[in-house]
Amino acid sequence: MRIRVVNPNTTVAMTALALRCARAVAAPGTRVDAATSADGPVSIESHYDEALSVPGLLAEIRRGEADGVDAYVVACFGDPGLDAARELAAGPVIGTAEAALRTATHLGRGFSVVTTLARTLGRAEDLTVRYGVDRFCRGLHACDLPVLDLETDPDARKIVTEACRAAVAADRSDAVVLGCAGMADLTAHITAEIGVPVIDGVAAATLTAQSLLTQGLRKSGRGEFAAPPAKPYTGMLAPFAL
Amino acid sequence: MRIRVVNPNTTVAMTALALRCARAVAAPGTRVDAATSADGPVSIESHYDEALSVPGLLAEIRRGEADGVDAYVVACFGDPGLDAARELAAGPVIGTAEAALRTATHLGRGFSVVTTLARTLGRAEDLTVRYGVDRFCRGLHACDLPVLDLETDPDARKIVTEACRAAVAADRSDAVVLGCAGMADLTAHITAEIGVPVIDGVAAATLTAQSLLTQGLRKSGRGEFAAPPAKPYTGMLAPFAL
Amino acid sequence: MRIRVVNPNTTVAMTALALRCARAVAAPGTRVDAATSADGPVSIESHYDEALSVPGLLAEIRRGEADGVDAYVVACFGDPGLDAARELAAGPVIGTAEAALRTATHLGRGFSVVTTLARTLGRAEDLTVRYGVDRFCRGLHACDLPVLDLETDPDARKIVTEACRAAVAADRSDAVVLGCAGMADLTAHITAEIGVPVIDGVAAATLTAQSLLTQGLRKSGRGEFAAPPAKPYTGMLAPFAL
Amino acid sequence: MRIRVVNPNTTVAMTALALRCARAVAAPGTRVDAATSADGPVSIESHYDEALSVPGLLAEIRRGEADGVDAYVVACFGDPGLDAARELAAGPVIGTAEAALRTATHLGRGFSVVTTLARTLGRAEDLTVRYGVDRFCRGLHACDLPVLDLETDPDARKIVTEACRAAVAADRSDAVVLGCAGMADLTAHITAEIGVPVIDGVAAATLTAQSLLTQGLRKSGRGEFAAPPAKPYTGMLAPFAL
Amino acid sequence: MRIRVVNPNTTVAMTALALRCARAVAAPGTRVDAATSADGPVSIESHYDEALSVPGLLAEIRRGEADGVDAYVVACFGDPGLDAARELAAGPVIGTAEAALRTATHLGRGFSVVTTLARTLGRAEDLTVRYGVDRFCRGLHACDLPVLDLETDPDARKIVTEACRAAVAADRSDAVVLGCAGMADLTAHITAEIGVPVIDGVAAATLTAQSLLTQGLRKSGRGEFAAPPAKPYTGMLAPFAL
Amino acid sequence: MRIRVVNPNTTVAMTALALRCARAVAAPGTRVDAATSADGPVSIESHYDEALSVPGLLAEIRRGEADGVDAYVVACFGDPGLDAARELAAGPVIGTAEAALRTATHLGRGFSVVTTLARTLGRAEDLTVRYGVDRFCRGLHACDLPVLDLETDPDARKIVTEACRAAVAADRSDAVVLGCAGMADLTAHITAEIGVPVIDGVAAATLTAQSLLTQGLRKSGRGEFAAPPAKPYTGMLAPFAL
Repeated sequence: MRIRVVNPNTTVAMTALALRCARAVAAPGTRVDAATSADGPVSIESHYDEALSVPGLLAEIRRGEADGVDAYVVACFGDPGLDAARELAAGPVIGTAEAALRTATHLGRGFSVVTTLARTLGRAEDLTVRYGVDRFCRGLHACDLPVLDLETDPDARKIVTEACRAAVAADRSDAVVLGCAGMADLTAHITAEIGVPVIDGVAAATLTAQSLLTQGLRKSGRGEFAAPPAKPYTGMLAPFAL
Repeated sequence: MRIRVVNPNTTVAMTALALRCARAVAAPGTRVDAATSADGPVSIESHYDEALSVPGLLAEIRRGEADGVDAYVVACFGDPGLDAARELAAGPVIGTAEAALRTATHLGRGFSVVTTLARTLGRAEDLTVRYGVDRFCRGLHACDLPVLDLETDPDARKIVTEACRAAVAADRSDAVVLGCAGMADLTAHITAEIGVPVIDGVAAATLTAQSLLTQGLRKSGRGEFAAPPAKPYTGMLAPFAL
Repeated sequence: MRIRVVNPNTTVAMTALALRCARAVAAPGTRVDAATSADGPVSIESHYDEALSVPGLLAEIRRGEADGVDAYVVACFGDPGLDAARELAAGPVIGTAEAALRTATHLGRGFSVVTTLARTLGRAEDLTVRYGVDRFCRGLHACDLPVLDLETDPDARKIVTEACRAAVAADRSDAVVLGCAGMADLTAHITAEIGVPVIDGVAAATLTAQSLLTQGLRKSGRGEFAAPPAKPYTGMLAPFAL
Repeated sequence: MRIRVVNPNTTVAMTALALRCARAVAAPGTRVDAATSADGPVSIESHYDEALSVPGLLAEIRRGEADGVDAYVVACFGDPGLDAARELAAGPVIGTAEAALRTATHLGRGFSVVTTLARTLGRAEDLTVRYGVDRFCRGLHACDLPVLDLETDPDARKIVTEACRAAVAADRSDAVVLGCAGMADLTAHITAEIGVPVIDGVAAATLTAQSLLTQGLRKSGRGEFAAPPAKPYTGMLAPFAL
Repeated sequence: MRIRVVNPNTTVAMTALALRCARAVAAPGTRVDAATSADGPVSIESHYDEALSVPGLLAEIRRGEADGVDAYVVACFGDPGLDAARELAAGPVIGTAEAALRTATHLGRGFSVVTTLARTLGRAEDLTVRYGVDRFCRGLHACDLPVLDLETDPDARKIVTEACRAAVAADRSDAVVLGCAGMADLTAHITAEIGVPVIDGVAAATLTAQSLLTQGLRKSGRGEFAAPPAKPYTGMLAPFAL
Repeated sequence: MRIRVVNPNTTVAMTALALRCARAVAAPGTRVDAATSADGPVSIESHYDEALSVPGLLAEIRRGEADGVDAYVVACFGDPGLDAARELAAGPVIGTAEAALRTATHLGRGFSVVTTLARTLGRAEDLTVRYGVDRFCRGLHACDLPVLDLETDPDARKIVTEACRAAVAADRSDAVVLGCAGMADLTAHITAEIGVPVIDGVAAATLTAQSLLTQGLRKSGRGEFAAPPAKPYTGMLAPFAL
């Protein structure tokens, strides 16, 4: 069983972080590796970044299919390109937000989401509606830290922790979902500090993918998520023709 | 890591089936055992049966806590007593419907539910709303087979398979959720027959529980799902006083 | 016409209070009596208490059917066991929350709910969704008073009144629903104090039941709420076999 | 206790029918009388008719306040002018659809609505959303009979009965709501024929009004439903100035 | 192409204001004129006012049809009589709230509504639900200024501007919808002051009507919005018989 | 006033069609031109195609900003890249589905959508939810014609017309939304054939954009849709760095 974590931004350090978090939870028999998008933004902090992270992601999914990968984790909380990736892949493709938000529903009545920049809260809100968890989501909060500062700002851990503490108090929530793959290694620390479960979507998505594979569950091969119809592509994107 | 499958009806054969299905998907390091309710109905086919399955279920959860069980699967598609069980248990308690319905959302745009008696469809509908998956649920169908006939009727497998086939055609759905723990061993056969993924909730719930444990996620210990306040209980239920 | 108020907890004083409130509103031709559950918790303050109040409730419904009771009021705001009770009873079974929440919708645009312990707010929220009144519900509030203290705490009336006043101010609501059958005798006082209508669910449910009987409305006798299928019950609950 | 049934169309025979149905269910101590709008359409079968029935209705509400009426029933399934009437009246004003639709929710999982002309189904649908019962409403059906033909067409009873039978079969519903005050006397016949409870909104609204009065529940006197601000009115409607 | 702005209150100065705002946005080839209701309230500040503005509005629609008007704008944020007007008119009838609320959804994730008296907020809330924009509506706010004071109070512009500023801050919204046709000339000033787009419904509705006409889109002529069935009308409203 | 229609697929003939439709409705003072994506699929018939149409679309938006374009129409019913395009553009960017679906809500109670391949119905359904028009959408239908066959198949017009006729009959709807920019020139023919209004999204979006410009409405420049933060882009997409 082989799961690949695909980082749709081009920052290798974030891929390494995501891979560590994925491997930390995978079962003994599960091989987990990772890929970094070759094309696109160094971090995803806008709809523009997110949209432009998708070609690189899809190129990695295609490479993964050639490599015999069984399932994929998309390591960005905006879940970019999920529907398209599912058409390409024969096996499961799981989004970080998708897995984290659904996991949170098992932990109590309501959860808070804490993410990086306020401008990404809208996308997070859209995803709670898409995944049917809006009634469980008690609040969406930003800590106003750019994604790449999560690694470089010496106060990052403290800032995120305090944002989580404030979110739980304001929302009277039972859990926190961390809204950025770059926060993946903070869960244990924050849980210890604030006393509620804290969910990292990369770990959650890795386990969701592994669970689907274990159950032998994969898309039916027909309908909306069947392989996309082959057709010409032009210009810079000509290589994407199937 | 120790997961206990609790059958809230009193039919030992159904417990054995559920345990087999749970063990078939558990990771190497996960110990799975099972318990059968000592008190209540031999099968759950009405709101009355379901309500009266809860004391036996809670007695098993309490016993499980004494035994050091880490997480529980409630092996009945009506998810009886889930909120109460969560108050009692320190670790995760996962419902069969809860896990199956959420799992189905990863497999496409919409799923069908196929269950036993038509009178239980209302409960299934309530659960799709409760878990926020009503928009993914394309239809709820009964095959008009009593629960215990699943094991004894020589045509049971065929009847359920044909009900699934008809449901997928009517709903144009991407997956089927089997709405009874007693159908747990039919997934592979039905998938082979009708060509769409078929989900058994016992397997799904076992993996959900295992995934939460692997991530170290458990309720926060305060609020709605904290341990219930201790108080006197009277009459036949006096032993349930905490 | 004979209506029975069933108290699903085992505290006789609360039954007496509920009976007084029910009789205060019943029409001249309506006989109202009451029954107290023999088995279960002395008060209902958790999902655990609620689940374990159901067998005692159902035993009373069954006894009521033998006694020729025409309709039932379940005198606890969590509406425990309502679906199961409806299967058992030939006539209407009305929940306290069900009646109170629907009654409140006739009194303005939005209402507040004020209940005892904060840990029960989740159940109240679930019920607003179940009964389709979530858009009318402007807020759910706790006064942090245990149920049995409503009778013994000399400040109880004041505490509940002030919680109602605060709720109306915070929610800009048009009415208050009291979220505990033990508050049933406070409505007139609180209305006089805060100037908005205050609803007790026991009175509301008694009148709803009476209204259904007057109209000759009872379940159709087939489908989801038909009498439950007869089957063996085992252990402590063997007497519940039909 | 005095309740007035106001017929917002100008057909006296329909007022008489509504009054009979209201009196048939009122408690001994409740005085019920009726009023017919003096101004407007002879029947309400369009948004145009409904809008133009409102001045006549409001004139009757105003007259009722002068007469010391305690509560009102608006005897038309479109619930015309309900919000405005509530501003005018000190006591409850209950709509026929409002009461019937809420009553139906106590009788099972889902109901069907059967009304006269198909062009009025949109209004009925709007009302199910307004009253929060859309999830209980399994279907909206027309029997294509104009309102006034209900009294004159010798086949009317049969046509409505068969429309109800077909609706219940198509919707697999537990009850029928009759979507026209002119059908009020058919409930017993149709229930006997098709075996599910059938609800007349005039009776339901009369009992809802009576129940609110019995509980002493009336609007708070401030906010959205306070008496409308006094101001000049011009032209034909000058008498409506308060 | 001829569009008529109908003011459903009887204050001519408000008609003139609405006409100015409509003409300011109409395309060169579009003729815009205006009509003032002859019958009813001088301003619309309650459900009562709104209901009683409808006959005068419908009389103007009827006159407009005789005049060959192609489309109508109803110049009151409560969108009185919209469904009835649509039955009467062969061409489009667009509500002020309808157009403003839909326009606002193109300008960002969420908007605030700022209106006159708090008692009208309920109607505005109903309209956000009716038009399917409730998820985009971040808050409904009143500035506590009666409608006619908008023209006479020297502080009116300042009061509305500050209410908008506060609304945007409280709701973190991307746009403001002005909830009264009498505020129509304030948009540029407020936008300049608070830096977010501000929408006047009269302008928005004029352009919506013009756009529908340009596309040749008009109702189908059958079904719910077909011409109302002809029938007798009595009393003061006899002239409304078709 | 300058509006640019951007075709996000690379088929120039479709751009020409869209431009014709846009120009046919634009006001005299409005300059409309068009651009064709240089990079990506020749038609958009899958999530994969849609995702990969976005870079080419965004490149055109960027070019348009340099050219002084005031507003954009995205000429594909899947509304690809809308959020990202809005971040880039100072003025309005309107989606074809967005405009068509909102326009349809002005024409009656409910509409049908008729599109090309069944596999794209899921995306259309997502958009009805996103735009808050799901309650107006009575049905989503495919005519099983690939996008490019719309121009080459001699039966295309007939096939689409019959699909519209069948959709209206099945859904009892008041209007049809054509779910592909390639159907833009069929509206008059289909309306003539089936007697209900038929909406082309390119025309609708052009007029929505023109209306916003006429009102001077543009995004506020801060928050979610502010210009995206500048940052490095790598690989093939390096030119997209801002």
